[in-house]
Amino acid sequence: MTASVFGHPFLGRLFGDEEIASYFSAGADIEAMVAFELALAEAQAEAGLIDPRHAEAIRASTSDFTPDLAALAEGTARDGVVVPSLLKQLRGGIPEDAAKALHKGATSQDVIDASLAMRLQGVSLVLDRRLAQITDAFTAWNLAAGQKTVMAHTRMQAAKETRFSRKIAAWSDPLLRCRLRREEIAPRAFALRIGGAVGDRAGFGDRADAIASAAAAKLGLHRAPTSLHSERDGLAEFAGWLSLITGALGKLGQDVVLSIQNEVGELKLAGGGGSSAMPHKNNPVGAEILVTFARFNATLVSGMHQALVHENERSGAAWSLEWMILPQTAMAAGAATRTALELLDKLSLAEDDG
Amino acid sequence: MTASVFGHPFLGRLFGDEEIASYFSAGADIEAMVAFELALAEAQAEAGLIDPRHAEAIRASTSDFTPDLAALAEGTARDGVVVPSLLKQLRGGIPEDAAKALHKGATSQDVIDASLAMRLQGVSLVLDRRLAQITDAFTAWNLAAGQKTVMAHTRMQAAKETRFSRKIAAWSDPLLRCRLRREEIAPRAFALRIGGAVGDRAGFGDRADAIASAAAAKLGLHRAPTSLHSERDGLAEFAGWLSLITGALGKLGQDVVLSIQNEVGELKLAGGGGSSAMPHKNNPVGAEILVTFARFNATLVSGMHQALVHENERSGAAWSLEWMILPQTAMAAGAATRTALELLDKLSLAEDDG
Amino acid sequence: MTASVFGHPFLGRLFGDEEIASYFSAGADIEAMVAFELALAEAQAEAGLIDPRHAEAIRASTSDFTPDLAALAEGTARDGVVVPSLLKQLRGGIPEDAAKALHKGATSQDVIDASLAMRLQGVSLVLDRRLAQITDAFTAWNLAAGQKTVMAHTRMQAAKETRFSRKIAAWSDPLLRCRLRREEIAPRAFALRIGGAVGDRAGFGDRADAIASAAAAKLGLHRAPTSLHSERDGLAEFAGWLSLITGALGKLGQDVVLSIQNEVGELKLAGGGGSSAMPHKNNPVGAEILVTFARFNATLVSGMHQALVHENERSGAAWSLEWMILPQTAMAAGAATRTALELLDKLSLAEDDG
Amino acid sequence: MTASVFGHPFLGRLFGDEEIASYFSAGADIEAMVAFELALAEAQAEAGLIDPRHAEAIRASTSDFTPDLAALAEGTARDGVVVPSLLKQLRGGIPEDAAKALHKGATSQDVIDASLAMRLQGVSLVLDRRLAQITDAFTAWNLAAGQKTVMAHTRMQAAKETRFSRKIAAWSDPLLRCRLRREEIAPRAFALRIGGAVGDRAGFGDRADAIASAAAAKLGLHRAPTSLHSERDGLAEFAGWLSLITGALGKLGQDVVLSIQNEVGELKLAGGGGSSAMPHKNNPVGAEILVTFARFNATLVSGMHQALVHENERSGAAWSLEWMILPQTAMAAGAATRTALELLDKLSLAEDDG
Repeated sequence: MTASVFGHPFLGRLFGDEEIASYFSAGADIEAMVAFELALAEAQAEAGLIDPRHAEAIRASTSDFTPDLAALAEGTARDGVVVPSLLKQLRGGIPEDAAKALHKGATSQDVIDASLAMRLQGVSLVLDRRLAQITDAFTAWNLAAGQKTVMAHTRMQAAKETRFSRKIAAWSDPLLRCRLRREEIAPRAFALRIGGAVGDRAGFGDRADAIASAAAAKLGLHRAPTSLHSERDGLAEFAGWLSLITGALGKLGQDVVLSIQNEVGELKLAGGGGSSAMPHKNNPVGAEILVTFARFNATLVSGMHQALVHENERSGAAWSLEWMILPQTAMAAGAATRTALELLDKLSLAEDDG
Repeated sequence: MTASVFGHPFLGRLFGDEEIASYFSAGADIEAMVAFELALAEAQAEAGLIDPRHAEAIRASTSDFTPDLAALAEGTARDGVVVPSLLKQLRGGIPEDAAKALHKGATSQDVIDASLAMRLQGVSLVLDRRLAQITDAFTAWNLAAGQKTVMAHTRMQAAKETRFSRKIAAWSDPLLRCRLRREEIAPRAFALRIGGAVGDRAGFGDRADAIASAAAAKLGLHRAPTSLHSERDGLAEFAGWLSLITGALGKLGQDVVLSIQNEVGELKLAGGGGSSAMPHKNNPVGAEILVTFARFNATLVSGMHQALVHENERSGAAWSLEWMILPQTAMAAGAATRTALELLDKLSLAEDDG
Repeated sequence: MTASVFGHPFLGRLFGDEEIASYFSAGADIEAMVAFELALAEAQAEAGLIDPRHAEAIRASTSDFTPDLAALAEGTARDGVVVPSLLKQLRGGIPEDAAKALHKGATSQDVIDASLAMRLQGVSLVLDRRLAQITDAFTAWNLAAGQKTVMAHTRMQAAKETRFSRKIAAWSDPLLRCRLRREEIAPRAFALRIGGAVGDRAGFGDRADAIASAAAAKLGLHRAPTSLHSERDGLAEFAGWLSLITGALGKLGQDVVLSIQNEVGELKLAGGGGSSAMPHKNNPVGAEILVTFARFNATLVSGMHQALVHENERSGAAWSLEWMILPQTAMAAGAATRTALELLDKLSLAEDDG
Repeated sequence: MTASVFGHPFLGRLFGDEEIASYFSAGADIEAMVAFELALAEAQAEAGLIDPRHAEAIRASTSDFTPDLAALAEGTARDGVVVPSLLKQLRGGIPEDAAKALHKGATSQDVIDASLAMRLQGVSLVLDRRLAQITDAFTAWNLAAGQKTVMAHTRMQAAKETRFSRKIAAWSDPLLRCRLRREEIAPRAFALRIGGAVGDRAGFGDRADAIASAAAAKLGLHRAPTSLHSERDGLAEFAGWLSLITGALGKLGQDVVLSIQNEVGELKLAGGGGSSAMPHKNNPVGAEILVTFARFNATLVSGMHQALVHENERSGAAWSLEWMILPQTAMAAGAATRTALELLDKLSLAEDDG
């Protein structure tokens, strides 16, 4: 199915990002959900709430679990969440008393949100690495050409000459700030939410905090002070972060497009796109699409903020809206960083050409 | 790749729509693009601009064309559009002089926009049929239960009693108006754009109008008075139409969710979703997700309006933004109409239950 | 208060529009609400539901009504709507038995929505007149310069030469289509909603249709087939229309900005804006702000679609969202049309300059 | 002019916020711009770039400056920014040689962005104080009633009982996190941008850093490491912060609306709004409008992210879009915090009522 550009058979190479996509495959999601169930069982065993042998049985069984995707799809269509079906499949491979220990005290949202937090954390680290690569490329370019003189433009009119380093800083600095922001946001966006049926962790009694801490540690997640089920600010903030990345790269793309206009010719692009009607053209495809990703994420960030209005202890409507939007926003940020790296490799100051 | 819910292995049954998805497959797109090239060749043959035998050769060749998707993907990543690669593949199966007649006077945007218009028209007709089915279901429900008395709520407070028919009308009437709107929008949204390299149809000389008319007729599209390449209002308007559909169904979903609250109990839902933690629950999954689709499309419609700022004779940035948004908006409208039909089948007035 | 640019002491001349603003003054709103109450009373008198002398008393009293704005503000803060306070003030000037006939069978939403419909209709006619003026200006420019040759640009690269008439058509045609759309939308956007407490017109008995028709005729509004209170599609559609106008003008603004770049110099602008630091500059302020208005309305249109999810028979939350958004969207469309007219007056093809 | 609800004669009491509005008056803006010019002159005097007596003359003159608003409006309409006109007026009251020292090395954007940063910082502190008040109110409520049992609802269905403290935490915790976020964002959002004509501080020679630091210190702003003119991430991030506040309060409003439904009756609201048609009603106006503010800001945040695509060294189009959106977003956050405080004062658990 290809209504989405990201995995489209021929558009996907332009719009997609295989590394980021790997975090949003059904397999990655299931793997993370299973990891959560195991971490929860082991944390409960340590806390004395379930029999350690049951946790062992769960570990043994989950290590070679192969999901029946068709059954998961059918269950999701019915329940609105995949978890009841997934649990049924997991329990099929576990002795009956251990099966009762699986998912004990937890609820679907614990599982799904934990999987999301794990994968978003991974996505953020991929993006962080790429931001480092992009800013490194800017640093190198600055060393090589930063002292060259270029024309500054304000309000789309030629203004005064300035050094090229000024332009590089305007492209690079927001990305450096995004690296800092990632660390600030991490405890809020990559936190383990574990609350049970109505988010109060009632099923864990007075061991709730210990279990939540231990499970978070096992999964490499931050520990949320409370269950957080209906508090979605960390996710909206993360979407904003993704859009700050695409926005900064969109500004880069727009500037590149303007600088390589034939009439301006300040930057030079090696190997742009071809045209079916005009063979002489060298289209700045990569630069244009950076603008596209910026406007796409600027559009989608709105939906993540709409989803903050999360009714009561769990809103199916608001929660599902996140599912529709957040992975795409991450994909666009991934594709934008990938494209920016490719673009920087092909760009040079035109004056260097003589 | 499954960052998109629509084709997701297990979320797809909840969020997707197979019938609408069929219009957005790579295959459907390629088929429509090839149909455009054939229609253009035949129209030019009729107009005397190309040799009729070349048009015949093109017809013969296109009838059994099998695309090399990997090569198309590579070409799209380079050119930003699939058309140069597609033409290369098509020309490979045609004698050289006929190959020159293929795509004569046309440009990539002609092909891509024509394919989109054909497929959006198909989508609109599927949705129109479903709107008819939904409003028929409302009519039937009104006949059966419209005279029953229910409590009206204003500002989320019980207000006065009214007849159930009043509620049904509020759900049904906007959908009826959407059917009317479809007819109004059709000549603007489902028009053949054909303009050549820079949108002025210069390559067709004084036969431009005749060729455009003939090609539109062959493809079942409305004929645009001019080339329209950079005039995207018909598409933004169509996205608005899709969002009016999901908005009306979102209102239905919200009302259903409120009416079947345990404490209200005015409507009754057969067979809602199950919970992993609370087996007694009967979650109104279908009604909630109608709200989700409404908020999703209300978010995305903004991006289609941003894409109206289309630079010069063709904007890669704005055009690509449409590709990222419009198919999804259609998918959400499709899934919403599908879900609404399923939901109406399971709903009844609680008082009918005694 | 000046958090809004539209009425700002010094930004208002740039962003505002006095003619459109006149429809959104408190006075215009109150005048229209009072007109509704009078039309309703007279329609009910004609239908035999109230004593004609009471309608006469209402007419006499409303003709010289002066509202106490401070009291209206206090009431609105308490009730969420102005109508209870307004009615109290109106009733103060009417004999007691006539006062009981005032607003009989109606509810706050009838009044507020009727006032809005009247004023939006006025706004649409102002905009329609300006669209005619703008397209006339394009026609004149086309007659004068349409045959001149200019460079077409695709994907921000010089492509091929074309005639200037091609560019003019791309700016003008979407506006012509907006004029046509206005007529299509009118019966849905400028309809009298009159439904009473819960939207079922129960207070008017079997004379409901006659009263609604008569009141609509008196107010120059289209007659809605039903009460429509919770069906907001006509308003979302109208916001979309406003955004199609600003989007088309934003494309014009973007093209002008690109064409008058110093390095391109295809268009020439007389009397642009000055700079505090660079006296040599001639900033294309009017063209830039057309892009701003387009992006502003493209942003806001999303909120109007979110407001389609209107709970039950009346949603205070969704309704108030319209109040926050729709007048601004209209103001931006007004200011964009005003700015476009001013801009066209200052633009010429640079080649005409020699 | 009243197309905006915030300063509207009768809607303003419901939607507005006088304290926040004071930061967005023309007077506050001018005062801050004048303060910037003075700080810049004094910093340059200290750095030896201008004669200290000229800085004194500027101080003397600016201390009793009264702007001519009509002339500022006319200038803004022409130049797209107020600064050239403002400088002309300021220079009128200063000896000619001192007048030359005014604004030396600076540009309009330095002035306007500095004024905005000062005022946004003030706004953020007002909001921070109110967030403290709101979370204090939650703490008090928790002490009084947190141990009471209430029904939790998931997916809009009654789920299980939980303690009221769980609900309070879900309302309060996101606001506490917003207080923390304010500190993280401050150096990026409340930084002095000072860059001169094209953002490279060229006019200050090798004293640029010293001058920027001294001016920032005088104005109580953070010092930006570079000029930042075209790097708008701090402002988009600040808009996101405002929307996280309104989103969290929108969730509170939504929950309150649901809890005080007549059929649910878990919370009790003293003194809600009256209805013109149904005197028995007690409308939860304040709770509903919290939802409205959340959806409004969730809509607007998109526009601030669109404005990240800021062309070249200064984009009139993107910059003006910020002016249209950011003050409103702050107003909505202000009104939401004000409304939440008023609402909490009127709310109680219904069971406390017996």
